[in-house]
Amino acid sequence: MSSGTDTGAERPAGQPPSAQYVAEIGRNAHALVEELYPFCRSLTGDGVRQTLRALQKVIPLEMREVPTGTRAYDWTVPNEWHIEDAYVLDGAGRRIVDFRASNLHVVGNSSPIDARVSREELLKHLHTDPAHPDWIPYRHTYYRESWGFCAAHKIVASLTEPEYRVRIDSRLEPGNLTYGEFFVPGREDGEILISTHTCHPSLCNDNLSGISVGALIARDFANTRPRYGMRFLFVPATLGPLVWMSRNENVLPSIRAGFVLAGVGDRGKPTYTRSRRGNSLIDRATIHVIQHTNAASTIRDFAPNGYDQRQYCSPGFDLPIGCLMRTPNGDYPEYHFSADNPRLVAPEGLGDSWRIVRQAIDIVQDDRRYLNLLPKGEPRLGARGLFADAERLGLLWTLNFSDGTRTLLDIAERSGMPFWLLHEGARRLVETGLLRELNEEAA
Amino acid sequence: MSSGTDTGAERPAGQPPSAQYVAEIGRNAHALVEELYPFCRSLTGDGVRQTLRALQKVIPLEMREVPTGTRAYDWTVPNEWHIEDAYVLDGAGRRIVDFRASNLHVVGNSSPIDARVSREELLKHLHTDPAHPDWIPYRHTYYRESWGFCAAHKIVASLTEPEYRVRIDSRLEPGNLTYGEFFVPGREDGEILISTHTCHPSLCNDNLSGISVGALIARDFANTRPRYGMRFLFVPATLGPLVWMSRNENVLPSIRAGFVLAGVGDRGKPTYTRSRRGNSLIDRATIHVIQHTNAASTIRDFAPNGYDQRQYCSPGFDLPIGCLMRTPNGDYPEYHFSADNPRLVAPEGLGDSWRIVRQAIDIVQDDRRYLNLLPKGEPRLGARGLFADAERLGLLWTLNFSDGTRTLLDIAERSGMPFWLLHEGARRLVETGLLRELNEEAA
Amino acid sequence: MSSGTDTGAERPAGQPPSAQYVAEIGRNAHALVEELYPFCRSLTGDGVRQTLRALQKVIPLEMREVPTGTRAYDWTVPNEWHIEDAYVLDGAGRRIVDFRASNLHVVGNSSPIDARVSREELLKHLHTDPAHPDWIPYRHTYYRESWGFCAAHKIVASLTEPEYRVRIDSRLEPGNLTYGEFFVPGREDGEILISTHTCHPSLCNDNLSGISVGALIARDFANTRPRYGMRFLFVPATLGPLVWMSRNENVLPSIRAGFVLAGVGDRGKPTYTRSRRGNSLIDRATIHVIQHTNAASTIRDFAPNGYDQRQYCSPGFDLPIGCLMRTPNGDYPEYHFSADNPRLVAPEGLGDSWRIVRQAIDIVQDDRRYLNLLPKGEPRLGARGLFADAERLGLLWTLNFSDGTRTLLDIAERSGMPFWLLHEGARRLVETGLLRELNEEAA
Repeated sequence: MSSGTDTGAERPAGQPPSAQYVAEIGRNAHALVEELYPFCRSLTGDGVRQTLRALQKVIPLEMREVPTGTRAYDWTVPNEWHIEDAYVLDGAGRRIVDFRASNLHVVGNSSPIDARVSREELLKHLHTDPAHPDWIPYRHTYYRESWGFCAAHKIVASLTEPEYRVRIDSRLEPGNLTYGEFFVPGREDGEILISTHTCHPSLCNDNLSGISVGALIARDFANTRPRYGMRFLFVPATLGPLVWMSRNENVLPSIRAGFVLAGVGDRGKPTYTRSRRGNSLIDRATIHVIQHTNAASTIRDFAPNGYDQRQYCSPGFDLPIGCLMRTPNGDYPEYHFSADNPRLVAPEGLGDSWRIVRQAIDIVQDDRRYLNLLPKGEPRLGARGLFADAERLGLLWTLNFSDGTRTLLDIAERSGMPFWLLHEGARRLVETGLLRELNEEAA
Repeated sequence: MSSGTDTGAERPAGQPPSAQYVAEIGRNAHALVEELYPFCRSLTGDGVRQTLRALQKVIPLEMREVPTGTRAYDWTVPNEWHIEDAYVLDGAGRRIVDFRASNLHVVGNSSPIDARVSREELLKHLHTDPAHPDWIPYRHTYYRESWGFCAAHKIVASLTEPEYRVRIDSRLEPGNLTYGEFFVPGREDGEILISTHTCHPSLCNDNLSGISVGALIARDFANTRPRYGMRFLFVPATLGPLVWMSRNENVLPSIRAGFVLAGVGDRGKPTYTRSRRGNSLIDRATIHVIQHTNAASTIRDFAPNGYDQRQYCSPGFDLPIGCLMRTPNGDYPEYHFSADNPRLVAPEGLGDSWRIVRQAIDIVQDDRRYLNLLPKGEPRLGARGLFADAERLGLLWTLNFSDGTRTLLDIAERSGMPFWLLHEGARRLVETGLLRELNEEAA
Repeated sequence: MSSGTDTGAERPAGQPPSAQYVAEIGRNAHALVEELYPFCRSLTGDGVRQTLRALQKVIPLEMREVPTGTRAYDWTVPNEWHIEDAYVLDGAGRRIVDFRASNLHVVGNSSPIDARVSREELLKHLHTDPAHPDWIPYRHTYYRESWGFCAAHKIVASLTEPEYRVRIDSRLEPGNLTYGEFFVPGREDGEILISTHTCHPSLCNDNLSGISVGALIARDFANTRPRYGMRFLFVPATLGPLVWMSRNENVLPSIRAGFVLAGVGDRGKPTYTRSRRGNSLIDRATIHVIQHTNAASTIRDFAPNGYDQRQYCSPGFDLPIGCLMRTPNGDYPEYHFSADNPRLVAPEGLGDSWRIVRQAIDIVQDDRRYLNLLPKGEPRLGARGLFADAERLGLLWTLNFSDGTRTLLDIAERSGMPFWLLHEGARRLVETGLLRELNEEAA
């Protein structure tokens, strides 16, 4: 992919990116999806490493290796999976199911096998879906030793021979679980966590969309010194967050907000799932952005299912982390099928998701309390050159409610005005001496 | 009635009774209504004693006698009413209004009279309703000495003679107010109160439906040792609750929940009136049951009218007691007419009311806080054999929100899942060591 | 105007005024609007003094003079404006724009000028509105020295001469800002503030409607000794409230409730804007009155625009003051045009606004906590002659919820019954010894 995109340095701090810039980001993100598509990712193994190495061309990602057998709460890092090849041969020696054609053809984490099996035995290990006869399903067997193949259902009718040769050239051996981490330190205490999973093979919306949007958000913050630190995690689902948290418990109290990104590239409207806390800053910021900028959207309450927010929001952590998707997993037919390919995800979907995340982060970064320094009556705005009609009402809202108890987001929510408009107005009010920033401590 | 109904001992604790069992209870309840129908109940007197003695065949009810003149707050127990006979004779000596044909024909608590009165004088003491010419109205004169008859309005046209003999063979003398009480002690502090009124003569929905449903709930708890004590009161309206409370003020702080049952046997949808507190445990439990199991229902806020919740919820007591009805009094034409007979109440209505009360009591009995013992991340359910798909989401909800601050009903309300499903899951989670019951004290 | 209207002394305290009385008030208010219509009010000057002197015939208003140069927070009292005459002459010496025909023809606070100007120069200083060709717009130039005329747009076509004589015979000199104040002391601590602006010339809904309704409310309280003091302010917009507050900061903590009255005379439904606090007593009282007595209305949340509530509700004061209007300013085409004349305002609109304000004030004056002295069970109302059916439910509500934590307005809101009905019932319950008034201190 091109890394020539303007990183938005010229837009005023906290102001929305232009449509043109968002479109360019969408194209970049889609190119990154296509680049990562061929790798055979899994819970562990070299497919993950290939993916993270490709991301290192975009951001200075650190690759972490966690040995087999490491405990993470109720879980243990399993053996690492190596896969070289896998196929089913017919009597004529033709590969009728072939890992080289699609890495979805082998069940993820399959044990090795090399045998002749009866047609019946093969069918027991062959996953197909008659409802989608052209699509290869995606299956894995992470926590039970087993082997298997997946194929388009139409193959079943052609399986007329009594016996087939099956071979999976894999190894499950002590090794490592691999994940990527990138941290940008902030000027103040506190950090924002962006997490996306990396364990799905050649599937695009689930999970390459999250990986690419997360990487392009991270790129924005490389070489910056934001107010709050920015941390980006590229980890296998479920076990990844648990491994990371078990090694970083001291960091957890600093997390002020965060996103799990998953399924953020399709053409559907955005879906935001609130954190378990229900109305934390990230929830309010994201919903504010979506309601001011998206024509349609779905806002959901937290439930203990879905993506890795299940782990981050388990009761022992209860982190303020929400989940951004577009069409929810399970609500689009291509989910966990080979049809979740680069054509399912769109530059527009990826770009819009990037924009929502970026604007919500900006709100978390910029939200603070201000103090009106002339709180008795309205100050004379005209005398200070602050009378541009379009912004005047925003200035009045900010002045009236900057009483030391409310943040700018509180005021934006109450007034119905966009945060970024009030934020720009607050900047001008601070310049003219009518408003003063309050430190968190002073609140 | 048959007492052979299975008392449900074999169903798992806290799980909903089967439709078959509910239907059998409905038939039992209707048989009990029919058995109690002929007795001439009133505020005091032998009709109440006959009723309570019939209930003693179902439950070990204690009969209490409170002497005339006993004070109960602003009220005083009046003279006891004895009624032997009452009639109006025409010139030919025929009983044209006859207590033996229906005890509604005499105004409840009537003073005695034996006189010849003019047609005009008779009409002053004869209550009829032209809007319902075939129905005998129900009237009483509890707090003013008077006498009177009630009759179907069509009688008026036939009153063509100048004079009639009227006789009411009654006595109002010092005696007692009679009520029934049955208490099942609990294992923990606290009790649940079920109260229903007993002062209406041959009327079925108001009040035999409440008496029979209350008695069959009580039968369920006889010979059990529930968590919280179960107390059942069969008392005359208004004065009964006041007399009972004035004699049991020390018990009142233990009442955790309760129902007034009245008009629970007709074919209408259930109507639940919240306690004065508005969102107490009994309110939440009953509404939870109704919303998960009844297609239609009405939920009302407390108002200081209606049945005996007026007394239990007066500000000096403010007990957490709601009222279950089906069609509200006044919303069905048969209310306080002879048409409120055994055909107005249906086994289906009685059974469904019994079920709602029983399931709500089960929630009050079973609701508690639990503590997730592996709160960091999701524990591995599959490794513990806890992966039945239908219940898995319930297990996850219970685990995620059992953080020591929420009860199971809190979690049921938040998740939208039925309490009894979560309760069964919690039992399994306790068995596998993932969850621990918290005592009230520990919360 | 006639001052012969009955001041309502004979209606029971706190009970709604009769429709006949309201109609009479409406006619009085309209007569007062007509009387005040010709005066050339402005931010300062003799037009204001003429207005206040006319009001002194209705109420014992004190006229306050605040010298030019006096500071009021961020603002300063400007020079006083004197205007004698103003006109535009055509070549024939005819007054084609004439202050004597309408004081709207001169821009408010115009500097003096006496010159011949070109047609082009005249047009730069002549305000017209092509959308309303027959109406003279209303303009002022309070905080920028300038001069100008306003006229019906149709004049423009007739301006065919190359030059015109313009003359504004005005002076801007050190003088005073003038406002009116009337205070009725109360029996208890606390006061209610009614404020209306006085700075608009011959315009009726904005602002003579507020002046006349405010004056007639004030007249009601003259020679009374209400529970809370009643203060009435007739002040120029924006600067007036700030000047008053800067001179009366010690009074501000006593203000329990208040209204800004503006645009209260047209034929539209009432519009009430809540105080910044959002649910203060004045908000609840006014909304209660409107919802029980007006078929249609609009209730708005506070926003930092609109009338003088902007100043009273600025964060340094945050007074519990709402704003009553009928059709909001800007939503009727006549706003700030000569068409806002005596025909735009109606006795019905003025009377209804007076009624809403009066009834809301009554609630603020009358609202208090009571204590049920027989809180255990319902007391026997019949035995105390308290059984009139229509009021019985109100008595029960008051008894049940007068537990020392709720005021009568709390009970009215919860029950859905009108405050004045409960208030009358409370009076009777106090008389019969069932209820006792609680002092604020005892609550």
